[in-house]
Amino acid sequence: MKTLLAMAQLAKSASHHVRQASAEAKNLALHKMGASLKKQREAILKANLVDIEKAKADLPPHMVDRLSLEGGRLDAIISDLETVIQLPDPVGKLLEERTLPNGLELQKVTVPIGVLGIIYEARPNVTVDVASLALKSGNAAILRGGKETLHTNIVITRALQEGLEEASFPKEAIQLLKSPSRLQLRRLLKLDAYIDLIIPRGGEGLHRFCKEHSYIPVITGGMGICHLFLDESADIEKSLEVIYNAKTQRPSVCNALDTLLIHRNAFALFFPLLVKKLAEKGVIFHLDERAWSLFPHQGEAFLRACEKDWQTEWMSLHLGVKIVDSLQEAVEHIQTYGTGHSDGILTSSPVNGEAFVRAVDSATVYINASTRFTDGGQFGMGAEVAVSTQKVHARGPMGLRELTSYKWIIKGNYQVRK
Amino acid sequence: MKTLLAMAQLAKSASHHVRQASAEAKNLALHKMGASLKKQREAILKANLVDIEKAKADLPPHMVDRLSLEGGRLDAIISDLETVIQLPDPVGKLLEERTLPNGLELQKVTVPIGVLGIIYEARPNVTVDVASLALKSGNAAILRGGKETLHTNIVITRALQEGLEEASFPKEAIQLLKSPSRLQLRRLLKLDAYIDLIIPRGGEGLHRFCKEHSYIPVITGGMGICHLFLDESADIEKSLEVIYNAKTQRPSVCNALDTLLIHRNAFALFFPLLVKKLAEKGVIFHLDERAWSLFPHQGEAFLRACEKDWQTEWMSLHLGVKIVDSLQEAVEHIQTYGTGHSDGILTSSPVNGEAFVRAVDSATVYINASTRFTDGGQFGMGAEVAVSTQKVHARGPMGLRELTSYKWIIKGNYQVRK
Repeated sequence: MKTLLAMAQLAKSASHHVRQASAEAKNLALHKMGASLKKQREAILKANLVDIEKAKADLPPHMVDRLSLEGGRLDAIISDLETVIQLPDPVGKLLEERTLPNGLELQKVTVPIGVLGIIYEARPNVTVDVASLALKSGNAAILRGGKETLHTNIVITRALQEGLEEASFPKEAIQLLKSPSRLQLRRLLKLDAYIDLIIPRGGEGLHRFCKEHSYIPVITGGMGICHLFLDESADIEKSLEVIYNAKTQRPSVCNALDTLLIHRNAFALFFPLLVKKLAEKGVIFHLDERAWSLFPHQGEAFLRACEKDWQTEWMSLHLGVKIVDSLQEAVEHIQTYGTGHSDGILTSSPVNGEAFVRAVDSATVYINASTRFTDGGQFGMGAEVAVSTQKVHARGPMGLRELTSYKWIIKGNYQVRK
Repeated sequence: MKTLLAMAQLAKSASHHVRQASAEAKNLALHKMGASLKKQREAILKANLVDIEKAKADLPPHMVDRLSLEGGRLDAIISDLETVIQLPDPVGKLLEERTLPNGLELQKVTVPIGVLGIIYEARPNVTVDVASLALKSGNAAILRGGKETLHTNIVITRALQEGLEEASFPKEAIQLLKSPSRLQLRRLLKLDAYIDLIIPRGGEGLHRFCKEHSYIPVITGGMGICHLFLDESADIEKSLEVIYNAKTQRPSVCNALDTLLIHRNAFALFFPLLVKKLAEKGVIFHLDERAWSLFPHQGEAFLRACEKDWQTEWMSLHLGVKIVDSLQEAVEHIQTYGTGHSDGILTSSPVNGEAFVRAVDSATVYINASTRFTDGGQFGMGAEVAVSTQKVHARGPMGLRELTSYKWIIKGNYQVRK
C-alpha cells in the first residue's frame, strides 16, 4: 500500500496532466470511467454486499439501506456520471480583461484548483459523483469515504482508474484513501504542499474535525439551522404551503426549515391553521414561552422550547416556533442562532422584504420561497459538490465553477516597472 | 483590558453595523479617521519615539528605520487613507442574475466578509492601511501588529476609533490586539465563531504559523520564488532590461526575480551581457553546474549553486542561474521549485509563450514583462491588501473586491420545491 505522502505526491503530479487536458479529453475520460463501471458491475455489487453484511451487525436498517447499490442505484450513479459529460467545461473562462496604461494586457482566466481532498461518510454514490466533478473541472482528487463502504469504494475506484488509463490519463488523478481512520485523516489534512483544498461532506463533527486539524483550506458548510420569518403582511394560504414544503418535503436535509419566527400580530390567526396543516405529517412543535401561553396546546405534538432548541438543526419533523415583536427581533434571532445557510421572510411588503435581505447575512436569503431551493441543481449550476456556509471562496451551493481558481495572464512587450 | 473573546464578540457585533453602512457613511467615517490622525499627530509621533528608542537596543539600524514615522511618513499614511475614500465601494455589486423556470429570481450580490483578523509585523503604516481598506469594504477588523510598534499602534488605533465614533460607527469595528504574543495569536486563530478570515502580512514563518494553528480560513501568500525563462528566441537587448528590472529595482520584495532559467542555445551570447549589465548593481550569481563550467567566472560575484538555492527567495541581490535544454525543462523546474507567485517567459515565439502560460500554474504568468508588476496598484485594483499564492478565494494581488464575499438573494411568489 502506498504511503499517504506518496499518494499526495502522485496526485499533485497527475493534477498537472489533468489541469491541461482539453474539454474533449476530459469528457472521453468520463465516458471511459462510465463504461468501466458498467463492465465492473458484478464486482462492485459483490463488494457492496460484503459491506452490507458487515454493516447489518453495526448499523440500524435505514442506515444499512443508504449503503446499498441494489435496485438500480448503481445504474442511477452511472447515469449521473454521464450527465456530467454534458455540463460546460468550467476551465479557461475569461473572467476579466484589460489593457493597462503601459500596454500590458491582463487576462484573468479560470483554472483548476489542483488537488482536492474530499472527505465523506457512508454513501458510495459520492465516490463516483465527486470523482466525476473533480475530473470535469480539471482537478485531481484524493477521496476518503466512510469505512462502512470501504469495499465498495475500493472496487469503484479501481474501475474509475481503469477508465482513466484507457483515456490515457494518469490513474492517480483519482485515488482512494484505503485506511479511513481519523489518524490517517489527520495526516492527510497536513499535506498542504500537495493538496490545495479540502471539501468535507458530512455532519457537523466531520466539518469541525477538518477545520481544526487542517493546514489546507477547508470548505465548511453543510449545517443549516434555517429560519423563516412570517411577517404580519404575509399571504396566509401561500405561507402555509411554503412552510409545509420547507419543513416536511425532506426533513433530513440541511436546507429544511428548523425555526419559524412569527410576528405577534400574525400568530393568533396563522398558527392554528399551521398546526392543522402540519399535523398530517406528525410535526412536533417546540413553542417559546409566549406561544406556549397563547396557544391552547394539547397532546404530544407540543413541547416547551428551551434555549438549546434554537441551536438545533433538527434533521427531522421538529419545528421551533417563536413569536417576535418586529422584523428587527427576527433578524437578531437569526443573527444569534443562524448558521448562515438559508433564511427567508414571508411578506407582502416590499419594504420589509428589502430590509430583511439587507440585514440577514446568510449564504441564501429568500423573500417568499421555500428554503428547500438552496441546491446547486435548483440554482441551475448543473451539479452540486457541497453547500458552503463560510464566507471565503464560495458561498452557498458549489457547482463545477466553484471547483476552479483563476490565474492572471499578462502579455507584454518587455515592459519594466518604473 | 478586554479579553480576546470579548474583543471578537464586539467585532462581530460591530460588523453587522459596518456591513450595512452606505458608501457615503463609510467614506464619512474614513474622512473622520483621517482628521483624527491629524489631530493626534503629536501623540502618535511621541509614541513612535518610545518604540524607536526601545528598538534601537534590539534591532539593526535599517530595521529601526522601518518603524519610524518621522520625516513626513505619517502625512503619507494619512494621504493614503484619503485615497481609499476615492475608491469605488466594492459592496452590493450584482455578480449574476437569472430567473429560474419556476419564476424564482436569483441574484448573486457582493457583501462584506464580516470580521477580518489581520496579522502583521513591524510597520506602523500597515495599521492605518488595512484599517481603512477593511472599513471601506464593509468589514470589521482585529489587528495584531508587531510588538516593535506596539505603542505607535495603540495611539493610532485610538485615533482611528475616535474617528469612527464621530461618524457614529461602533469603535469596535477596528480593534488592536494589545498583547502581541504568539500565545495570544494562537488563541485568536481559534475564534472561528466570530472571525471570518485571517490575512497574515509578513514572512514565511508568520504565514505558516497562521496556517497551522488556525480554525479560521487563512489567506496565505507573500512568499515568491519568481522565475524568468529566457527562450532562445527572446530579444536580447529588451530581455536584459526586463531581467535588470525584475532583479534590481527593489530586490527585497516578493515579486523580485529569484531564478533565471536560460535556454542552452541562448546562454553563450546572452549571459556575458547580463553579467555586465547586472555587475553595476553588485548582483551575485549562483550558477548551476553547466553555467559554472561554460562561463569563465571570476571573482566573488559567482558562486556554485546548490540545491537549496533553487528553494530560496533571495530578497536581496542574489540570482540563481540555470541552463535548461527546453521550455519543458524550464516548466518542470518552476513546477518543482516555484511558489506559484509570479513566473514569466521572455520569447519572440507566440507558440512558446502560449505553451508556457498553459503549463505554468502560478498566480501571475508573464509573457515578456518584468515580474515586478504583480501588485494590486499596478493591476489597477486601486489598493493592495495582500498577494495570495493559494488557490482558493483569491489568487495574486488582492484589492478591495477580494475583501468581499457574496450572498444569494432569491425573490419568489411563495414557490415550493417539487
